[in-house]
Amino acid sequence: MTKSQLFEQILQKQSYLCVGLDTDIQKIPKHLLQAKDPIFEFNKQIIDATHQYAVSYKPNIAFYEAFGAKGWESLQKTLEYIPKECFTIADAKRGDIGNTSGLYARAFFDEQSSGLNFDSVTVAPYMGEDSVKPFLEFADKWVILLAFTSNAGSKDFQTLSLTNEKQLFEEVLTKSQDWGSSEQLMYVVGATKAAMLQKIRSIVPEHFLLVPGVGAQGGSLEEVSKFGMNKQCGLLVNSSRAIIYASSGEDFAEKAAQEAKKVQEEMKVYLNAYL
Amino acid sequence: MTKSQLFEQILQKQSYLCVGLDTDIQKIPKHLLQAKDPIFEFNKQIIDATHQYAVSYKPNIAFYEAFGAKGWESLQKTLEYIPKECFTIADAKRGDIGNTSGLYARAFFDEQSSGLNFDSVTVAPYMGEDSVKPFLEFADKWVILLAFTSNAGSKDFQTLSLTNEKQLFEEVLTKSQDWGSSEQLMYVVGATKAAMLQKIRSIVPEHFLLVPGVGAQGGSLEEVSKFGMNKQCGLLVNSSRAIIYASSGEDFAEKAAQEAKKVQEEMKVYLNAYL
Repeated sequence: MTKSQLFEQILQKQSYLCVGLDTDIQKIPKHLLQAKDPIFEFNKQIIDATHQYAVSYKPNIAFYEAFGAKGWESLQKTLEYIPKECFTIADAKRGDIGNTSGLYARAFFDEQSSGLNFDSVTVAPYMGEDSVKPFLEFADKWVILLAFTSNAGSKDFQTLSLTNEKQLFEEVLTKSQDWGSSEQLMYVVGATKAAMLQKIRSIVPEHFLLVPGVGAQGGSLEEVSKFGMNKQCGLLVNSSRAIIYASSGEDFAEKAAQEAKKVQEEMKVYLNAYL
Repeated sequence: MTKSQLFEQILQKQSYLCVGLDTDIQKIPKHLLQAKDPIFEFNKQIIDATHQYAVSYKPNIAFYEAFGAKGWESLQKTLEYIPKECFTIADAKRGDIGNTSGLYARAFFDEQSSGLNFDSVTVAPYMGEDSVKPFLEFADKWVILLAFTSNAGSKDFQTLSLTNEKQLFEEVLTKSQDWGSSEQLMYVVGATKAAMLQKIRSIVPEHFLLVPGVGAQGGSLEEVSKFGMNKQCGLLVNSSRAIIYASSGEDFAEKAAQEAKKVQEEMKVYLNAYL
Protein backbone atom coordinates (compact mmCIF):
# COMPACT_ATOMS: atom_id res chain seq x y z
CA MET A 1 0.00 0.00 0.00
CA THR A 2 1.28 3.50 -0.81
CA LYS A 3 1.28 6.46 1.53
CA SER A 4 -1.42 8.25 -0.45
CA GLN A 5 -3.64 5.14 -0.48
CA LEU A 6 -3.29 4.98 3.29
CA PHE A 7 -4.15 8.67 3.67
CA GLU A 8 -7.17 8.21 1.41
CA GLN A 9 -8.43 5.42 3.70
CA ILE A 10 -7.94 7.65 6.71
CA LEU A 11 -10.02 10.40 5.11
CA GLN A 12 -12.69 7.99 3.98
CA LYS A 13 -13.14 6.30 7.35
CA GLN A 14 -12.30 9.45 9.32
CA SER A 15 -10.11 7.25 11.43
CA TYR A 16 -6.44 6.46 12.04
CA LEU A 17 -7.19 3.60 14.36
CA CYS A 18 -5.09 0.44 14.25
CA VAL A 19 -6.60 -2.55 16.02
CA GLY A 20 -3.95 -4.75 17.63
CA LEU A 21 -4.73 -8.45 17.31
CA ASP A 22 -2.90 -9.62 20.45
CA THR A 23 -5.16 -12.62 20.54
CA ASP A 24 -4.58 -14.62 23.71
CA ILE A 25 -6.23 -18.01 23.98
CA GLN A 26 -6.51 -17.48 27.75
CA LYS A 27 -8.43 -14.25 27.33
CA ILE A 28 -10.89 -14.95 24.54
CA PRO A 29 -14.49 -15.80 25.44
CA LYS A 30 -14.92 -19.39 26.59
CA HIS A 31 -17.61 -20.25 24.04
CA LEU A 32 -15.07 -19.84 21.22
CA LEU A 33 -12.79 -22.55 22.54
CA GLN A 34 -14.96 -25.18 20.83
CA ALA A 35 -14.22 -23.70 17.40
CA LYS A 36 -11.73 -25.53 15.19
CA ASP A 37 -9.36 -22.57 15.33
CA PRO A 38 -10.46 -20.37 18.26
CA ILE A 39 -7.83 -17.68 17.60
CA PHE A 40 -8.91 -17.22 14.01
CA GLU A 41 -12.59 -17.37 14.98
CA PHE A 42 -12.05 -14.60 17.53
CA ASN A 43 -10.09 -12.46 15.04
CA LYS A 44 -12.71 -12.98 12.34
CA GLN A 45 -15.50 -11.67 14.53
CA ILE A 46 -13.35 -8.78 15.78
CA ILE A 47 -12.49 -7.80 12.21
CA ASP A 48 -16.13 -8.04 11.09
CA ALA A 49 -17.18 -5.84 13.98
CA THR A 50 -14.48 -3.17 13.75
CA HIS A 51 -13.34 -2.77 10.14
CA GLN A 52 -15.61 0.16 9.41
CA TYR A 53 -13.88 2.09 12.21
CA ALA A 54 -10.28 0.95 11.69
CA VAL A 55 -7.79 1.62 8.88
CA SER A 56 -5.24 -0.89 10.07
CA TYR A 57 -4.81 -4.25 11.84
CA LYS A 58 -1.71 -5.31 13.68
CA PRO A 59 -1.36 -8.99 14.59
CA ASN A 60 1.26 -9.32 17.32
CA ILE A 61 3.31 -12.20 15.92
CA ALA A 62 4.38 -13.62 19.30
CA PHE A 63 0.78 -14.53 20.09
CA TYR A 64 0.70 -16.79 17.00
CA GLU A 65 4.26 -18.07 17.09
CA ALA A 66 3.70 -19.32 20.64
CA PHE A 67 1.65 -22.10 19.02
CA GLY A 68 4.24 -23.07 16.43
CA ALA A 69 3.07 -24.22 13.00
CA LYS A 70 -0.56 -24.18 14.13
CA GLY A 71 -0.29 -20.57 15.23
CA TRP A 72 1.27 -19.65 11.92
CA GLU A 73 -1.80 -21.07 10.18
CA SER A 74 -4.12 -18.98 12.37
CA LEU A 75 -2.04 -15.94 11.44
CA GLN A 76 -2.29 -16.69 7.74
CA LYS A 77 -6.06 -17.13 7.88
CA THR A 78 -6.38 -13.91 9.88
CA LEU A 79 -4.32 -11.93 7.40
CA GLU A 80 -6.35 -13.27 4.47
CA TYR A 81 -9.54 -12.24 6.24
CA ILE A 82 -8.56 -8.61 6.80
CA PRO A 83 -10.28 -6.40 4.18
CA LYS A 84 -7.86 -5.40 1.43
CA GLU A 85 -8.28 -1.66 2.02
CA CYS A 86 -6.83 -1.98 5.53
CA PHE A 87 -3.13 -1.47 6.19
CA THR A 88 -1.68 -4.62 7.76
CA ILE A 89 1.20 -4.63 10.22
CA ALA A 90 3.20 -7.69 11.25
CA ASP A 91 4.27 -6.64 14.73
CA ALA A 92 7.32 -8.86 14.77
CA LYS A 93 10.24 -6.67 15.94
CA ARG A 94 12.63 -8.54 13.64
CA GLY A 95 16.14 -7.55 12.55
CA ASP A 96 19.29 -9.50 11.75
CA ILE A 97 22.31 -9.38 9.44
CA GLY A 98 21.51 -8.60 5.80
CA ASN A 99 20.86 -12.01 4.25
CA THR A 100 18.87 -13.10 7.31
CA SER A 101 16.73 -9.95 7.34
CA GLY A 102 16.08 -10.68 3.67
CA LEU A 103 14.53 -13.98 4.73
CA TYR A 104 12.44 -12.33 7.43
CA ALA A 105 11.22 -9.95 4.74
CA ARG A 106 10.17 -12.96 2.68
CA ALA A 107 8.42 -14.42 5.73
CA PHE A 108 6.16 -11.38 6.04
CA PHE A 109 6.00 -9.93 2.53
CA ASP A 110 6.34 -12.79 0.06
CA GLU A 111 3.11 -14.75 -0.10
CA GLN A 112 4.53 -17.35 -2.47
CA SER A 113 7.20 -18.22 0.06
CA SER A 114 5.45 -18.04 3.42
CA GLY A 115 1.75 -17.58 2.70
CA LEU A 116 1.87 -14.10 4.25
CA ASN A 117 1.54 -10.77 2.47
CA PHE A 118 1.64 -8.00 5.09
CA ASP A 119 1.94 -4.35 4.11
CA SER A 120 4.52 -3.69 6.81
CA VAL A 121 6.64 -5.20 9.55
CA THR A 122 8.06 -3.73 12.75
CA VAL A 123 11.86 -3.88 12.87
CA ALA A 124 14.36 -3.36 15.72
CA PRO A 125 17.24 -0.97 14.93
CA TYR A 126 20.05 -2.30 17.12
CA MET A 127 21.91 -4.08 14.30
CA GLY A 128 21.90 -1.02 12.03
CA GLU A 129 21.44 -0.26 8.36
CA ASP A 130 22.12 -3.63 6.75
CA SER A 131 19.60 -5.25 9.11
CA VAL A 132 16.85 -2.88 7.93
CA LYS A 133 17.55 -2.39 4.24
CA PRO A 134 16.44 -5.83 2.96
CA PHE A 135 12.90 -5.06 4.16
CA LEU A 136 12.92 -1.84 2.13
CA GLU A 137 13.60 -3.61 -1.14
CA PHE A 138 9.99 -4.77 -1.51
CA ALA A 139 7.80 -2.37 -3.53
CA ASP A 140 4.95 -0.73 -1.61
CA LYS A 141 5.98 -2.49 1.59
CA TRP A 142 6.92 -0.67 4.77
CA VAL A 143 9.36 -0.91 7.62
CA ILE A 144 8.07 0.39 10.94
CA LEU A 145 11.27 0.97 12.85
CA LEU A 146 11.35 0.96 16.65
CA ALA A 147 12.44 4.39 17.81
CA PHE A 148 10.94 5.09 21.23
CA THR A 149 8.84 2.32 22.73
CA SER A 150 6.14 2.65 25.37
CA ASN A 151 7.46 0.12 27.90
CA ALA A 152 9.44 0.80 31.08
CA GLY A 153 12.57 -0.70 29.50
CA SER A 154 12.69 2.10 26.92
CA LYS A 155 14.66 4.00 29.56
CA ASP A 156 17.43 1.40 29.66
CA PHE A 157 18.99 2.29 26.32
CA GLN A 158 16.68 4.36 24.07
CA THR A 159 16.89 7.54 26.11
CA LEU A 160 20.61 7.36 26.93
CA SER A 161 22.52 10.49 25.98
CA LEU A 162 25.14 10.25 23.29
CA THR A 163 28.21 12.45 23.09
CA ASN A 164 26.68 14.10 20.00
CA GLU A 165 24.04 15.53 22.36
CA LYS A 166 21.27 13.32 21.01
CA GLN A 167 19.47 10.59 22.85
CA LEU A 168 19.79 7.16 21.24
CA PHE A 169 16.22 7.15 19.88
CA GLU A 170 16.83 10.54 18.24
CA GLU A 171 19.92 9.14 16.57
CA VAL A 172 17.81 6.21 15.32
CA LEU A 173 15.27 8.65 13.87
CA THR A 174 17.98 10.79 12.32
CA LYS A 175 20.25 8.14 10.84
CA SER A 176 17.51 5.88 9.50
CA GLN A 177 16.12 8.64 7.30
CA ASP A 178 19.04 7.93 4.97
CA TRP A 179 17.86 4.35 4.55
CA GLY A 180 14.38 4.92 3.21
CA SER A 181 11.88 7.69 2.51
CA SER A 182 8.65 8.52 4.29
CA GLU A 183 6.95 6.46 1.57
CA GLN A 184 8.38 3.23 2.99
CA LEU A 185 9.49 3.94 6.53
CA MET A 186 7.41 4.62 9.63
CA TYR A 187 8.42 4.76 13.27
CA VAL A 188 7.12 3.19 16.46
CA VAL A 189 6.78 6.06 18.88
CA GLY A 190 5.34 5.25 22.27
CA ALA A 191 5.12 8.89 23.20
CA THR A 192 1.96 10.48 24.50
CA LYS A 193 3.41 13.67 25.97
CA ALA A 194 3.40 16.93 24.03
CA ALA A 195 7.08 17.78 24.49
CA MET A 196 8.28 14.39 23.32
CA LEU A 197 5.96 14.38 20.30
CA GLN A 198 7.09 17.86 19.29
CA LYS A 199 10.72 16.82 19.54
CA ILE A 200 10.06 13.73 17.40
CA ARG A 201 8.07 15.69 14.81
CA SER A 202 10.94 18.15 14.50
CA ILE A 203 13.19 15.26 13.40
CA VAL A 204 10.68 13.33 11.25
CA PRO A 205 8.02 15.79 10.05
CA GLU A 206 6.81 13.70 7.09
CA HIS A 207 6.83 10.14 8.40
CA PHE A 208 3.92 8.14 9.70
CA LEU A 209 4.19 7.26 13.38
CA LEU A 210 2.71 4.11 14.85
CA VAL A 211 1.69 5.03 18.38
CA PRO A 212 0.97 2.25 20.86
CA GLY A 213 0.06 2.91 24.44
CA VAL A 214 -3.23 4.69 23.93
CA GLY A 215 -6.09 2.91 25.65
CA ALA A 216 -5.32 0.10 28.10
CA GLN A 217 -1.70 1.30 28.41
CA GLY A 218 -2.86 4.86 29.22
CA GLY A 219 -1.98 7.93 27.16
CA SER A 220 -4.15 10.70 25.78
CA LEU A 221 -5.41 10.41 22.23
CA GLU A 222 -5.98 14.15 22.12
CA GLU A 223 -2.39 14.99 23.00
CA VAL A 224 -1.05 12.45 20.50
CA SER A 225 -3.30 13.86 17.78
CA LYS A 226 -2.63 17.51 18.53
CA PHE A 227 1.15 17.21 18.62
CA GLY A 228 1.70 14.20 16.37
CA MET A 229 -0.49 14.88 13.36
CA ASN A 230 0.97 16.18 10.10
CA LYS A 231 -0.60 17.18 6.77
CA GLN A 232 -1.21 13.60 5.70
CA CYS A 233 -2.35 12.65 9.20
CA GLY A 234 0.92 10.80 9.76
CA LEU A 235 -0.52 8.79 12.64
CA LEU A 236 -1.66 5.27 13.20
CA VAL A 237 -2.81 4.93 16.78
CA ASN A 238 -2.98 1.40 18.06
CA SER A 239 -5.39 0.00 20.58
CA SER A 240 -5.35 -3.69 21.40
CA ARG A 241 -6.77 -4.83 24.71
CA ALA A 242 -9.20 -1.94 25.23
CA ILE A 243 -10.99 -2.97 22.05
CA ILE A 244 -10.55 -6.71 21.60
CA TYR A 245 -11.16 -7.53 25.26
CA ALA A 246 -13.87 -4.92 25.86
CA SER A 247 -16.04 -7.83 26.97
CA SER A 248 -15.13 -11.41 27.83
CA GLY A 249 -18.65 -12.65 27.14
CA GLU A 250 -20.57 -13.68 24.06
CA ASP A 251 -21.09 -9.99 23.24
CA PHE A 252 -17.32 -9.44 22.79
CA ALA A 253 -17.59 -8.45 19.11
CA GLU A 254 -20.44 -6.05 19.72
CA LYS A 255 -18.58 -4.42 22.61
CA ALA A 256 -15.40 -4.25 20.50
CA ALA A 257 -17.37 -2.43 17.80
CA GLN A 258 -18.68 0.06 20.37
CA GLU A 259 -15.16 0.75 21.65
CA ALA A 260 -13.74 1.11 18.14
CA LYS A 261 -16.58 3.42 17.16
CA LYS A 262 -15.96 5.57 20.23
CA VAL A 263 -12.29 5.96 19.30
CA GLN A 264 -13.13 6.62 15.64
CA GLU A 265 -15.59 9.36 16.58
CA GLU A 266 -12.94 11.01 18.73
CA MET A 267 -10.46 10.73 15.85
CA LYS A 268 -12.94 12.37 13.50
CA VAL A 269 -12.98 15.40 15.78
CA TYR A 270 -9.17 15.60 15.83
CA LEU A 271 -8.92 15.18 12.05
CA ASN A 272 -11.20 18.17 11.70
CA ALA A 273 -9.28 20.15 14.28
CA TYR A 274 -5.62 19.39 13.53
CA LEU A 275 -5.23 18.14 9.94
CA MET B 1 21.02 -27.20 30.11
CA THR B 2 23.17 -25.82 32.94
CA LYS B 3 26.50 -24.07 32.54
CA SER B 4 28.40 -26.96 34.09
CA GLN B 5 26.69 -29.46 31.78
CA LEU B 6 27.73 -27.33 28.82
CA PHE B 7 31.31 -27.11 30.07
CA GLU B 8 31.36 -30.87 30.55
CA GLN B 9 30.33 -31.37 26.92
CA ILE B 10 33.06 -29.00 25.80
CA LEU B 11 35.68 -30.99 27.71
CA GLN B 12 34.34 -34.29 26.48
CA LYS B 13 34.28 -33.34 22.82
CA GLN B 14 37.26 -30.99 23.10
CA SER B 15 35.22 -28.55 21.10
CA TYR B 16 33.30 -25.30 21.50
CA LEU B 17 31.98 -25.37 17.97
CA CYS B 18 28.43 -24.31 17.23
CA VAL B 19 27.14 -25.29 13.81
CA GLY B 20 24.77 -22.71 12.36
CA LEU B 21 21.85 -24.26 10.51
CA ASP B 22 21.23 -21.39 8.06
CA THR B 23 19.64 -23.86 5.70
CA ASP B 24 18.83 -22.20 2.41
CA ILE B 25 16.72 -24.14 -0.08
CA GLN B 26 18.60 -22.40 -2.90
CA LYS B 27 21.97 -23.57 -1.63
CA ILE B 28 21.40 -27.18 -0.62
CA PRO B 29 22.47 -29.96 -3.02
CA LYS B 30 20.01 -30.46 -5.86
CA HIS B 31 19.49 -34.18 -5.21
CA LEU B 32 17.82 -33.34 -1.88
CA LEU B 33 15.06 -31.31 -3.49
CA GLN B 34 13.13 -34.50 -4.19
CA ALA B 35 12.88 -35.30 -0.48
CA LYS B 36 9.55 -34.69 1.25
CA ASP B 37 11.15 -32.01 3.45
CA PRO B 38 14.47 -31.04 1.82
CA ILE B 39 15.44 -28.61 4.59
CA PHE B 40 15.02 -31.22 7.30
CA GLU B 41 16.73 -33.87 5.18
CA PHE B 42 19.74 -31.59 4.72
CA ASN B 43 19.88 -30.76 8.44
CA LYS B 44 19.56 -34.40 9.41
CA GLN B 45 22.55 -35.39 7.34
CA ILE B 46 24.57 -32.37 8.54
CA ILE B 47 23.80 -33.23 12.17
CA ASP B 48 24.68 -36.89 11.67
CA ALA B 49 27.98 -35.88 10.08
CA THR B 50 29.04 -33.20 12.56
CA HIS B 51 27.67 -33.96 16.02
CA GLN B 52 30.80 -35.64 17.26
CA TYR B 53 32.69 -32.38 16.60
CA ALA B 54 30.09 -29.83 17.70
CA VAL B 55 28.67 -29.01 21.14
CA SER B 56 25.92 -26.78 19.83
CA TYR B 57 23.53 -26.22 16.91
CA LYS B 58 22.01 -22.89 16.00
CA PRO B 59 19.08 -22.89 13.57
CA ASN B 60 18.68 -19.40 12.14
CA ILE B 61 14.94 -18.95 12.55
CA ALA B 62 14.47 -16.65 9.52
CA PHE B 63 15.45 -19.49 7.19
CA TYR B 64 12.51 -21.54 8.49
CA GLU B 65 10.00 -18.75 9.04
CA ALA B 66 10.41 -17.71 5.39
CA PHE B 67 8.34 -20.81 4.58
CA GLY B 68 5.56 -20.12 7.05
CA ALA B 69 3.87 -23.04 8.81
CA LYS B 70 5.78 -25.55 6.66
CA GLY B 71 9.10 -24.01 7.68
CA TRP B 72 8.07 -24.16 11.31
CA GLU B 73 7.54 -27.91 10.91
CA SER B 74 11.01 -28.35 9.40
CA LEU B 75 12.40 -26.45 12.38
CA GLN B 76 10.57 -28.65 14.85
CA LYS B 77 11.79 -31.85 13.20
CA THR B 78 15.34 -30.48 13.11
CA LEU B 79 15.30 -29.58 16.79
CA GLU B 80 13.97 -33.01 17.73
CA TYR B 81 16.76 -34.62 15.72
CA ILE B 82 19.63 -32.77 17.44
CA PRO B 83 21.27 -35.08 20.02
CA LYS B 84 20.18 -34.21 23.55
CA GLU B 85 23.72 -33.51 24.80
CA CYS B 86 24.06 -30.61 22.35
CA PHE B 87 23.21 -27.04 23.37
CA THR B 88 20.52 -25.69 21.06
CA ILE B 89 20.18 -22.03 20.11
CA ALA B 90 17.15 -20.45 18.46
CA ASP B 91 18.82 -17.62 16.60
CA ALA B 92 15.70 -15.47 16.52
CA LYS B 93 16.77 -11.99 17.69
CA ARG B 94 13.42 -11.50 19.43
CA GLY B 95 12.44 -8.88 22.01
CA ASP B 96 9.21 -7.01 22.77
CA ILE B 97 7.28 -5.60 25.73
CA GLY B 98 6.99 -7.93 28.71
CA ASN B 99 3.85 -9.94 28.03
CA THR B 100 4.80 -10.30 24.37
CA SER B 101 8.34 -11.46 25.16
CA GLY B 102 6.72 -13.98 27.47
CA LEU B 103 4.93 -15.42 24.47
CA TYR B 104 8.12 -15.51 22.40
CA ALA B 105 9.69 -17.39 25.30
CA ARG B 106 6.87 -19.93 25.07
CA ALA B 107 7.42 -20.17 21.31
CA PHE B 108 11.02 -21.32 21.78
CA PHE B 109 11.08 -22.91 25.25
CA ASP B 110 7.66 -24.42 25.90
CA GLU B 111 7.28 -27.63 23.93
CA GLN B 112 3.67 -28.11 25.01
CA SER B 113 2.73 -24.79 23.50
CA SER B 114 4.77 -24.56 20.31
CA GLY B 115 6.40 -27.95 19.82
CA LEU B 116 9.84 -26.37 20.36
CA ASN B 117 12.15 -26.85 23.31
CA PHE B 118 15.36 -24.90 22.66
CA ASP B 119 17.99 -24.38 25.35
CA SER B 120 18.42 -20.75 24.42
CA VAL B 121 17.25 -17.89 22.26
CA THR B 122 19.03 -14.81 20.94
CA VAL B 123 17.38 -11.57 22.09
CA ALA B 124 17.80 -7.94 20.96
CA PRO B 125 18.37 -5.43 23.79
CA TYR B 126 16.85 -2.24 22.36
CA MET B 127 13.62 -2.43 24.36
CA GLY B 128 15.43 -2.95 27.68
CA GLU B 129 14.97 -5.01 30.82
CA ASP B 130 11.28 -5.92 30.65
CA SER B 131 11.76 -7.20 27.10
CA VAL B 132 14.47 -9.62 28.24
CA LYS B 133 13.30 -10.77 31.68
CA PRO B 134 10.43 -13.05 30.59
CA PHE B 135 12.93 -15.29 28.78
CA LEU B 136 14.94 -15.62 32.00
CA GLU B 137 12.04 -17.04 33.96
CA PHE B 138 12.38 -20.49 32.41
CA ALA B 139 14.59 -22.86 34.45
CA ASP B 140 17.82 -23.97 32.74
CA LYS B 141 17.03 -21.87 29.68
CA TRP B 142 19.28 -19.13 28.39
CA VAL B 143 19.08 -15.69 26.87
CA ILE B 144 21.86 -14.86 24.43
CA LEU B 145 21.72 -11.09 24.31
CA LEU B 146 23.00 -9.14 21.31
CA ALA B 147 25.85 -6.94 22.48
CA PHE B 148 28.25 -6.38 19.60
CA THR B 149 27.30 -7.96 16.30
CA SER B 150 29.61 -8.85 13.42
CA ASN B 151 27.80 -6.99 10.62
CA ALA B 152 28.69 -3.61 9.13
CA GLY B 153 25.59 -2.05 10.74
CA SER B 154 27.00 -2.67 14.21
CA LYS B 155 28.73 0.70 13.75
CA ASP B 156 25.44 2.55 13.35
CA PHE B 157 24.39 2.38 16.98
CA GLN B 158 26.29 -0.26 18.99
CA THR B 159 29.59 1.56 19.03
CA LEU B 160 28.21 5.06 19.59
CA SER B 161 29.73 6.85 22.56
CA LEU B 162 27.53 7.68 25.50
CA THR B 163 28.04 10.60 27.82
CA ASN B 164 28.96 8.11 30.57
CA GLU B 165 32.09 7.35 28.49
CA LYS B 166 30.90 3.91 27.50
CA GLN B 167 29.98 2.73 24.03
CA LEU B 168 26.39 1.51 23.72
CA PHE B 169 27.36 -2.19 23.54
CA GLU B 170 29.39 -1.80 26.75
CA GLU B 171 26.35 -0.30 28.44
CA VAL B 172 24.32 -3.30 27.25
CA LEU B 173 26.90 -5.67 28.72
CA THR B 174 27.06 -3.72 31.98
CA LYS B 175 23.39 -3.08 32.61
CA SER B 176 22.14 -6.52 31.59
CA GLN B 177 24.26 -8.23 34.24
CA ASP B 178 21.66 -7.07 36.76
CA TRP B 179 18.99 -8.99 34.87
CA GLY B 180 20.41 -12.50 35.01
CA SER B 181 23.53 -14.38 36.09
CA SER B 182 26.17 -16.04 33.94
CA GLU B 183 24.19 -19.25 34.50
CA GLN B 184 21.37 -17.99 32.27
CA LEU B 185 22.74 -15.14 30.19
CA MET B 186 25.26 -15.22 27.34
CA TYR B 187 26.21 -12.52 24.86
CA VAL B 188 26.53 -12.35 21.11
CA VAL B 189 29.94 -10.85 20.49
CA GLY B 190 31.04 -10.55 16.88
CA ALA B 191 34.52 -9.53 17.89
CA THR B 192 37.59 -11.22 16.55
CA LYS B 193 40.21 -8.62 17.48
CA ALA B 194 42.29 -8.92 20.64
CA ALA B 195 41.66 -5.43 21.99
CA MET B 196 37.90 -5.68 21.65
CA LEU B 197 37.79 -9.14 23.23
CA GLN B 198 39.91 -8.00 26.15
CA LYS B 199 37.64 -5.02 26.70
CA ILE B 200 34.56 -7.27 26.64
CA ARG B 201 36.11 -9.84 28.98
CA SER B 202 36.92 -7.06 31.45
CA ILE B 203 33.17 -6.31 31.67
CA VAL B 204 31.82 -9.90 31.54
CA PRO B 205 34.56 -12.23 32.78
CA GLU B 206 32.27 -15.14 33.67
CA HIS B 207 29.72 -15.20 30.86
CA PHE B 208 29.68 -17.41 27.82
CA LEU B 209 30.10 -15.52 24.55
CA LEU B 210 28.56 -16.68 21.30
CA VAL B 211 30.98 -15.59 18.60
CA PRO B 212 29.79 -15.55 15.01
CA GLY B 213 31.98 -14.37 12.19
CA VAL B 214 34.65 -17.05 12.32
CA GLY B 215 34.91 -18.96 9.06
CA ALA B 216 33.08 -17.65 5.99
CA GLN B 217 32.72 -14.21 7.61
CA GLY B 218 36.49 -14.05 8.34
CA GLY B 219 37.99 -13.71 11.80
CA SER B 220 40.74 -15.67 13.51
CA LEU B 221 39.77 -18.58 15.75
CA GLU B 222 43.11 -18.36 17.49
CA GLU B 223 42.66 -14.71 18.46
CA VAL B 224 39.10 -15.34 19.66
CA SER B 225 40.25 -18.31 21.73
CA LYS B 226 43.32 -16.64 23.18
CA PHE B 227 41.54 -13.47 24.28
CA GLY B 228 38.01 -14.73 24.77
CA MET B 229 38.42 -17.95 26.73
CA ASN B 230 37.79 -18.08 30.47
CA LYS B 231 38.11 -20.86 33.06
CA GLN B 232 34.97 -22.63 31.92
CA CYS B 233 35.85 -22.03 28.28
CA GLY B 234 33.15 -19.36 28.04
CA LEU B 235 33.05 -19.54 24.26
CA LEU B 236 30.74 -20.96 21.67
CA VAL B 237 32.17 -20.20 18.25
CA ASN B 238 29.71 -20.44 15.41
CA SER B 239 30.40 -21.50 11.87
CA SER B 240 27.55 -21.80 9.41
CA ARG B 241 28.33 -21.56 5.71
CA ALA B 242 31.95 -22.78 5.89
CA ILE B 243 30.69 -26.08 7.27
CA ILE B 244 27.22 -26.71 5.93
CA TYR B 245 28.03 -25.56 2.39
CA ALA B 246 31.55 -27.01 2.27
CA SER B 247 30.35 -28.88 -0.81
CA SER B 248 27.27 -28.39 -2.96
CA GLY B 249 27.42 -31.96 -4.26
CA GLU B 250 26.26 -35.32 -2.99
CA ASP B 251 29.29 -35.42 -0.69
CA PHE B 252 28.06 -32.36 1.27
CA ALA B 253 27.73 -34.20 4.58
CA GLU B 254 31.13 -35.83 4.30
CA LYS B 255 32.75 -32.49 3.48
CA ALA B 256 30.86 -30.82 6.34
CA ALA B 257 32.25 -33.47 8.69
CA GLN B 258 35.78 -32.79 7.43
CA GLU B 259 35.39 -29.05 8.00
CA ALA B 260 33.88 -29.52 11.44
CA LYS B 261 36.65 -31.95 12.38
CA LYS B 262 39.29 -29.44 11.24
CA VAL B 263 37.78 -26.73 13.46
CA GLN B 264 37.41 -29.13 16.39
CA GLU B 265 41.06 -30.18 16.14
CA GLU B 266 42.12 -26.55 16.19
CA MET B 267 39.85 -25.95 19.20
CA LYS B 268 41.44 -28.87 21.02
CA VAL B 269 44.81 -27.16 20.70
CA TYR B 270 43.43 -23.90 22.09
CA LEU B 271 41.66 -25.63 24.96
CA ASN B 272 44.98 -27.12 25.94
CA ALA B 273 46.78 -23.81 25.54
CA TYR B 274 44.37 -21.28 27.04
CA LEU B 275 41.93 -23.00 29.40
